[in-house]
Amino acid sequence: MATENKVIRCKAAVAWEPGKPLCIEEVEVAPPKAHEVRIKVVASGVCHTDWAYLYECGKGMRPRPFPLVLGHEGAGIVESIGQGVCGFSPGDKVIPLFLPQCKECEFCLSPKTNLCSKNWEKTQRGVLEDGSSRFTCRGQQLYQFIGVSSFSEYTVVPEYNITKIHPDAPLDRVCLLGCGVSTGYGAALNAGKVETGSSCAVFGLGAVGLAAVMGCKAAGASRIIGIDINPDKMEIGRRFGVTEFVNPKDHNKPIQDVVMELTGGGLDYCFECVGNVAVMRSALESCKAAWGTCVIVGWTELEELTLAPIDILLGRTLKGSYFGGWKGVDSVPRLVEDYMSGRIMLDEFVTHTLSLEQINQAFDLMVSGKSSSVCNQSVFQSCDAASPLPHSQRERKTGEG
Amino acid sequence: MATENKVIRCKAAVAWEPGKPLCIEEVEVAPPKAHEVRIKVVASGVCHTDWAYLYECGKGMRPRPFPLVLGHEGAGIVESIGQGVCGFSPGDKVIPLFLPQCKECEFCLSPKTNLCSKNWEKTQRGVLEDGSSRFTCRGQQLYQFIGVSSFSEYTVVPEYNITKIHPDAPLDRVCLLGCGVSTGYGAALNAGKVETGSSCAVFGLGAVGLAAVMGCKAAGASRIIGIDINPDKMEIGRRFGVTEFVNPKDHNKPIQDVVMELTGGGLDYCFECVGNVAVMRSALESCKAAWGTCVIVGWTELEELTLAPIDILLGRTLKGSYFGGWKGVDSVPRLVEDYMSGRIMLDEFVTHTLSLEQINQAFDLMVSGKSSSVCNQSVFQSCDAASPLPHSQRERKTGEG
Repeated sequence: MATENKVIRCKAAVAWEPGKPLCIEEVEVAPPKAHEVRIKVVASGVCHTDWAYLYECGKGMRPRPFPLVLGHEGAGIVESIGQGVCGFSPGDKVIPLFLPQCKECEFCLSPKTNLCSKNWEKTQRGVLEDGSSRFTCRGQQLYQFIGVSSFSEYTVVPEYNITKIHPDAPLDRVCLLGCGVSTGYGAALNAGKVETGSSCAVFGLGAVGLAAVMGCKAAGASRIIGIDINPDKMEIGRRFGVTEFVNPKDHNKPIQDVVMELTGGGLDYCFECVGNVAVMRSALESCKAAWGTCVIVGWTELEELTLAPIDILLGRTLKGSYFGGWKGVDSVPRLVEDYMSGRIMLDEFVTHTLSLEQINQAFDLMVSGKSSSVCNQSVFQSCDAASPLPHSQRERKTGEG
Repeated sequence: MATENKVIRCKAAVAWEPGKPLCIEEVEVAPPKAHEVRIKVVASGVCHTDWAYLYECGKGMRPRPFPLVLGHEGAGIVESIGQGVCGFSPGDKVIPLFLPQCKECEFCLSPKTNLCSKNWEKTQRGVLEDGSSRFTCRGQQLYQFIGVSSFSEYTVVPEYNITKIHPDAPLDRVCLLGCGVSTGYGAALNAGKVETGSSCAVFGLGAVGLAAVMGCKAAGASRIIGIDINPDKMEIGRRFGVTEFVNPKDHNKPIQDVVMELTGGGLDYCFECVGNVAVMRSALESCKAAWGTCVIVGWTELEELTLAPIDILLGRTLKGSYFGGWKGVDSVPRLVEDYMSGRIMLDEFVTHTLSLEQINQAFDLMVSGKSSSVCNQSVFQSCDAASPLPHSQRERKTGEG
C-alpha cells in the first residue's frame, strides 16, 4: 500500500487557539503505532461540543490543550493498521468512537454503564496512549480531540476507539451515529428506559433532541411533547414523532408550569437536550413528582444545576446519558444496520453538506440557528471520498507526504 | 363505650407559635367524622421534622399553620370509629400514617410510587377532609400535623391514614415504624434497591441513617461506610451493620474526596440521611461516576441543592425516598412482624423514654446531640398505656371531657 508506514500529508481544520475560527492547513498524520488504526475520514458531522471547545474554552470551561484538531462525529475507511491490531483491515468501513470500549476495564465488564476507563484521562488531555498525538503542522504537535479528530482527511485512533460497520453503509449518513443521533436515541432507550404508553417531553429539538424523540417513539411512548424556542421545529419535530409542540416563547410563565397544566401533573420522562442548567431544572420540574425521570443529555461545564431537594425526595429521578448509554464497539454497527433497514432515520438530520474548507461556515450555520430550520446538523465530506470507493481507486486518490 | 361519640378531654403538646417550646395543655378531641378513626396514642417517637416545623418555620421554610399539634411517629389503639369505617374496630392496635394509602388514586394504583394524593393538600394545610381539625383548646382550633398529630393522648385520623398491626406488637417500639425507621430502611431496599455484594455509604447516622444501614445490610451489601461527625456513632453504627466508619472531622479535605480515595473511585449507593444540601452534594459525588446511585432521604426546605451537570451526565443517578417507598397500609404491618420475628431491629433505636410532659426535653436531647450517643430517637409514652391494656381496663382509664 502506497501510504502504509508513511506520514500522510493532508488537509485538516486546525484550532490554533480558543475563540478563533478554524484554519484549513496541510498537516502531517503519522502512521499508527501499535494498537492504533489510521483512518481516511470520509464524512463528519459538526457537533455543538466541537464548537463549545473552541469558543467557550476560557469562559468557564476548564482549559483544553491547543492547538488541536476538533471533530468527533466521523466515519471513514481504514487506511492502515499498527502492530497488534487484529480486528481491522485496510478498506474496512469504520466509525471512530470518542468513548472507547476496551472490553477489559471494570466499566466495560459491567452491564450498568457504557463508560470505559481505557486512556480516559489521556484522551481528555488530547493525546493517545503514548502521551503524544499523531498530528503535526509546521513542526508543532496538534492535540487530538477526545481520541478522534475527525476534522481532518486522515486521523489515527486507538483500536478500541473504532468500530467496523457494514460495507454498504453510506458514510455521509452513518457518521451521525458517532455522536448526536446515538446520544439522543440511546438516552430514551437505555438511560430513560421509556415504557410503552408513557408520556415524554424533549427539551431542545436539535439533532440530539430529535434523536431522543425518535427513541421515545421507538419505545412506544404515546405522548411526546417537543419543546423548542424555534417555531420551525414544530413541523420537523412531527416528522420524528413529536405529538405536541410547545414554544416557551408563546407563554408568559415558566415552561414547567405550562407542562404541568398541559399534562395534569407532569410527565413520565423528560429529556434535556440543550446543555443549559435552567432548561435542566425545567425538565426536572416537568416530571411527575411521584415517579418522573429526567435524563440530562445536554452537556455544559459553564454553570451548575440548582434544584429543590423536595423535587427529588418525593420521587423524581435525575440521571444522565453519555453517548446514549451505548457500548460503542458492540452497538454502533447494529445502529448502522437499523438505519440501513429503515428502523431509524438519519437522512432527515442532514441539513447541509459542505466541504472541509467550509467548516467555519458549518459552525456559523449551527450556532446561528440558520441550519435549525431543519435541524442543527451539518455534515462535512472529504472532497474525494463522499461515496464508497474501490480500494485501489481510494489509494490512488490518497494524498501522501 | 364510655367515650364514643363524645368529645374527649386529654393532654396534648400544643405548638402555639413558631420558635416557642410546646405547651402541655388540656385539649378537646372531637369524635371522628365519617371515614375517620379516633386513636388513643400510646407512644410516639420524636422526629427531627417535628422540631423543624416548630423552630425553622419562618427561617426559610414555607409558612405553616399554627397553633398545631405536632407528632407523626405514633402508635396507639382505636378508641372509636366514624361512620362508614369498616376496616377498624375499637381495641385494634394501629399505626397512624402521615402518608396515606387510599388504594384508589393514580399513585396508589401504580407500583412505581408510595405517594397518595388523597387529601394531600389538606393535610399539608393542617386539616382533615372537611377542612377543619378535630382539636380545640380554649375555644381555638388547633391544626393537625400532616394528618397525624401524635403529640396528644388522643387524635383523629382519616381511615386511609392508619394501618392495623399485630395485636401483640409493643407500641412503644413499633411507633418508630411510623416514620424514621421505615424511611431509612426502605430507602435502601425500595429506592436504592441495593444489590448483594455492593458498596454503600450512609451519610448521617441518626435514626434514619442507622435504619438505612440496616437496610443495606439486609440487602446484602458487602461494604457499608458510615459517615458522621459524632465519633460515638462508630460503635453504634457497627451494631446496625456499618463495616467502616469515617468522621469528616478527622480529615482536612472534602468527605467525597476521602471516600473516593478510600474506595478507589466511589460507591455503588450513597444515602443522605441528614437533610443538608452540602451533604447531599457530598453523597452524590461519593457515588461511582458510571453507575452510582445517590438517594436523598433527609428533608430540607431551607436551601437548594447545587451540583455539576457532568456528575449526572456521566452516569450517576439522583433519586429520593419518601417514607422509604413503603405503601404504608400494606407494608407497615409486615414491618411490624419483621420486628417481632427479629428480622429488623427497633429496640436499639430508643435512647430515652419520656412522658408527654417532657416533650420539650425530648426535643432538646435530639437537637443537642446528647441523645445521639446512641441515636437521636426518643420515644414519649402516654402515662397510662405504655403496655397493652385489656379493653375494659383501657376504657376505664380513659379520661373523658
